[in-house]
Amino acid sequence: MTDCVFCKMVNGEIKPDTVYEDERVLAFRDTNPQAPVHVLVIPKRHIATLNDLDESDAELAGALLLGAARVAQQEGIADSGYRTVINCNNEAGQSVYHIHLHLLGGRRMRWPPG
Amino acid sequence: MTDCVFCKMVNGEIKPDTVYEDERVLAFRDTNPQAPVHVLVIPKRHIATLNDLDESDAELAGALLLGAARVAQQEGIADSGYRTVINCNNEAGQSVYHIHLHLLGGRRMRWPPG
Repeated sequence: MTDCVFCKMVNGEIKPDTVYEDERVLAFRDTNPQAPVHVLVIPKRHIATLNDLDESDAELAGALLLGAARVAQQEGIADSGYRTVINCNNEAGQSVYHIHLHLLGGRRMRWPPG
Repeated sequence: MTDCVFCKMVNGEIKPDTVYEDERVLAFRDTNPQAPVHVLVIPKRHIATLNDLDESDAELAGALLLGAARVAQQEGIADSGYRTVINCNNEAGQSVYHIHLHLLGGRRMRWPPG
């Protein structure tokens, strides 16, 4: 997707503040952080929303959660706690139409989650 | 886990308000809903937190997200939008130590997510 800002990060056209990367996912700091740790984890392959995942994407979808857990460890918030959030479509506030998981931690999170 | 309330739902000892089930996950309504649609999606296998996932669990972890997307479709909120949330450990407010994904929708979600 030539016009997708997250695809541009994956292909190196835009340089995010990367904290983790493997063959399936890229993780970088949110530019408008809502917690002391606020990292986005995205699949390297362009998938617009959670609705666009199919059964064969299960492992890739899981890689987002595994990537989040790994970054939480790296950032020192795995034991204290962290929240993962994925927004799908307008009412949830999805801004970029390339799936991204928000990892938030380093403070006590409130309920409800927005 | 004989003392885990979610395992008791999986094995039928407690009957939740089930909305979806497949070989890997079970989805049921939260008893303290924070949105018009508020469903929990859990793995049938007991895993305490996101920190306890290992690489071989990628597909099972992805099944939580695929299950959420399927329930969103079923509940008629896939197009309007929905948020998925997983809390890990105390600061995030994890209450039951069996991984559970919160699926919330049917209203506009706020930011930050708690």
